[in-house]
Amino acid sequence: MSFPPLQNDSFLRACQRLSTPHTPVWLMRQAGRYLPEYRETRARAGSFMGLATNVDYATEVTLQPLERYPLDAAILFSDILTVPDAMGLGLSFALGEGPRFASPVRDEVAVRALAVPDLDKLRYVFDAVTSIRRALAGRVPLIGFSGSPWTLACYMVEGAGSDDYRLVKTMLYSRPDLMHHMLRINADAVAAYLNAQIEAGAQAVMIFDSWGGVLADGAFQEFSLAYTARVLSQLRRSHDGAVIPRIVFTKGGGPWLEQMGQLDCEVLGLDWTVNLGRARELVGGSKALQGNLDPNVLFAPPAQIEAQTLRVLESFGTPHTGSGQGPTHIFNLGHGINQHTPPEHVTALVEAVHAHSRRLRGGKPER
Amino acid sequence: MSFPPLQNDSFLRACQRLSTPHTPVWLMRQAGRYLPEYRETRARAGSFMGLATNVDYATEVTLQPLERYPLDAAILFSDILTVPDAMGLGLSFALGEGPRFASPVRDEVAVRALAVPDLDKLRYVFDAVTSIRRALAGRVPLIGFSGSPWTLACYMVEGAGSDDYRLVKTMLYSRPDLMHHMLRINADAVAAYLNAQIEAGAQAVMIFDSWGGVLADGAFQEFSLAYTARVLSQLRRSHDGAVIPRIVFTKGGGPWLEQMGQLDCEVLGLDWTVNLGRARELVGGSKALQGNLDPNVLFAPPAQIEAQTLRVLESFGTPHTGSGQGPTHIFNLGHGINQHTPPEHVTALVEAVHAHSRRLRGGKPER
Repeated sequence: MSFPPLQNDSFLRACQRLSTPHTPVWLMRQAGRYLPEYRETRARAGSFMGLATNVDYATEVTLQPLERYPLDAAILFSDILTVPDAMGLGLSFALGEGPRFASPVRDEVAVRALAVPDLDKLRYVFDAVTSIRRALAGRVPLIGFSGSPWTLACYMVEGAGSDDYRLVKTMLYSRPDLMHHMLRINADAVAAYLNAQIEAGAQAVMIFDSWGGVLADGAFQEFSLAYTARVLSQLRRSHDGAVIPRIVFTKGGGPWLEQMGQLDCEVLGLDWTVNLGRARELVGGSKALQGNLDPNVLFAPPAQIEAQTLRVLESFGTPHTGSGQGPTHIFNLGHGINQHTPPEHVTALVEAVHAHSRRLRGGKPER
Repeated sequence: MSFPPLQNDSFLRACQRLSTPHTPVWLMRQAGRYLPEYRETRARAGSFMGLATNVDYATEVTLQPLERYPLDAAILFSDILTVPDAMGLGLSFALGEGPRFASPVRDEVAVRALAVPDLDKLRYVFDAVTSIRRALAGRVPLIGFSGSPWTLACYMVEGAGSDDYRLVKTMLYSRPDLMHHMLRINADAVAAYLNAQIEAGAQAVMIFDSWGGVLADGAFQEFSLAYTARVLSQLRRSHDGAVIPRIVFTKGGGPWLEQMGQLDCEVLGLDWTVNLGRARELVGGSKALQGNLDPNVLFAPPAQIEAQTLRVLESFGTPHTGSGQGPTHIFNLGHGINQHTPPEHVTALVEAVHAHSRRLRGGKPER
C-alpha cells in the first residue's frame, strides 16, 4: 500500500523524543458523542457496532474532530473490545450503557476454550484503518489501538463494566493459573491485531490498560504489566521504512511509573493524578510523555481552560528543542473526553496548547 | 465520663509507632452487610438511617464483628455523610443503592447558605460513641470517623455517588472561590464533629478521603489535602490523659504519599495499589501505616487468603520491636469489605495476620 506523504509529523516526532515547534495535541475519544455530527452519523448507523463495523462510517467519524480542530493526530474509531468479540463472546452496546458480552468467561471450561481469533473476523477494523489513512491524505498520522490483555480480561470475565471487579479478581486470586492462561491468549491476540493494524496503515499504536489501576501492587506487575510487555515484544518496530511508535496508557498507573518506564515502548500515557514534572524526572530520559488534563476542566469557561492547560504544559516544563532525542510531551486528556463536553471548549484547549507551547519554546514563559 | 481500662492496646500503640507483639488488625466496614447478624438487625431497624440513628442498634452492630473475630479495634457504626445531613441536605439510602441528598449544593446561593451545623443535630452519633465505648468494656479501643471536607463536597454537589464527578469538578474549575468557601465550612464542621466524638469516648479518629484520588495533581493538594490539614490542626491531641491518634485515608492517594507524609497526623491509611515497603521508606519514619489488602482477596479460598495476607505483611517487613518509636503497621483492607464476602473467610484473614506477624517478629520469616 502507498499513502500520500505526511504533512504534520509533530506527533510522530514527539513520540520519538525529537523536537517539534509546538507540543502536539490529540484527545482520547476525540471522535465521540460530544460532537453533534458524530451523533448524527451514529443515528444513521443505528448502533455503535453498526458504526464501528462499517468502513465508511468509521472513516467519517474519525475525521470529524479534525474538521473542527487543528489536532496533530487521528485515532482509529473503534472499540477496545473488538478482540474478545472476535473470540466469540458477543459484544453489544445498549444505548446509554457500556459494553456487554453475551458469553462472559467465568469458569475453567470457558477459559480453556479461548483461542487467538481468526484475524479475518477483524477485517472490518483493518479495512477501516486503510480507508481512514487514505482519507487523511497525509494531514496527520493515524493511531491504531487495542485494549490491554488485562483490560480485555476484566470485561471478558465481568461481562460488562464493574464497580469492584469482584468476578475477575476472584478468578485471579483463586485460580491464577486460569488467569495467566487467558492473559497469554489475550496478549498474543492483541499483538497480532495491532500488527495487522500497522500493516493496514496505522502509523503508531496505543495499548489502553484502562483497568490496570484497579489491581493491587504486585498483582499489577504480574497480571497486567507482564502481559503488556508480552504484547510489546511481538510488535513490529517499523513498517514501510517508518518507525511505528508504541504508546502504553495505564489509567491509575501512577504508583508504578518507574516500572512502566522499563517497558519496551516509546510513549507512556498518564492520567491526571500524575505530576508531569515528576514523571519527566523518573522516566522522561527514555519515554515521551502523553497527557494529562482532567477532562472535567472542559466544563469550565474558556479562560479557566486556558489557565489549566498552561498549568499542565508548565508542569512538564519546556521540551527539548535541540537536535537528537530529549524529553518531549504530547498533550492529551488524562482519560477520554466526556460526552457532555461543549465542543467549542475543545477549540479553546487546542489553541491554548499550540500557542502557549510555542511561547514556552521561545523562552518567553507566560503566567 | 469514665470507662473501664483498656485490655488490648495493640492498635493504639501501633498508631503511636510503639512496638506490639503482633500486627493489630481491623477492617474498614467490618460491621456491615456481609454479616448475617448485621442484615438481621438492619431488617429490624427498617432502614440504614434507622440503624445509624438508633443508639442501641448502632451499638449492637458495632460489636457484632468483635464477637466473631479477634479484631484489635472497633469502629463506630455510622456513615461518612452525617455532617452534610445535619447541614440540612437530607440524606437517605435507597435499598441496594448508595447515599442520596434531597437538596444538593449546586449554585452560589446554596453554597452561601451553608454553615457549620448545630452539633445537637448529631447528638445521636455522640450518644452512640459513648454507648459503644461502654459496651466494649475495654476489650479494644473505639475509632470515630468522618468523611473528609473534599469527600463531603463531592456528595454535597453531586447529590449521590458519581462516575465522573462532573458537577463537583465543574464547580471546582469554574468557581474555585465557591469550592474553597464550601471546603472551609466542611473542614470546620468535620473538626467540631470529630472533637465531639473524642469527648464522647472515641479513642482514635479517622478521616476518610474516599474521593481524594479522583482529583488531578495540583487540585488534590489545593482542594483536598489542604482541608484535611485544616481539620487536623483543630483536633484534640489527647483526652482524659490519653493520646488520640489521627488516621488519614485517601483512596487513590498513592501518587501523593510524600506530601501526605507532611500531614500532622499519626497514621496514613493506604489502598492496595501502594507498595508498603516503599511507603515505609518514604513516610514510615514519621507515620504508622495502615492497610492494604485488596478486599477481593477475601473471595479466594482460605489458603490463598493466607498467602496474600503474608505477602502484605512481608511487603511492610518486620515492624520495630524495641522500646521507643519506630516503623509500625496496622493491618487492614485497602478499602471497605465487600458485602458479598463469606464471613468465614475473614476468620482466615485475622488468624493469618496474628500468627504470621508474631512469627515475623520472632525472626522466623515464613515463605
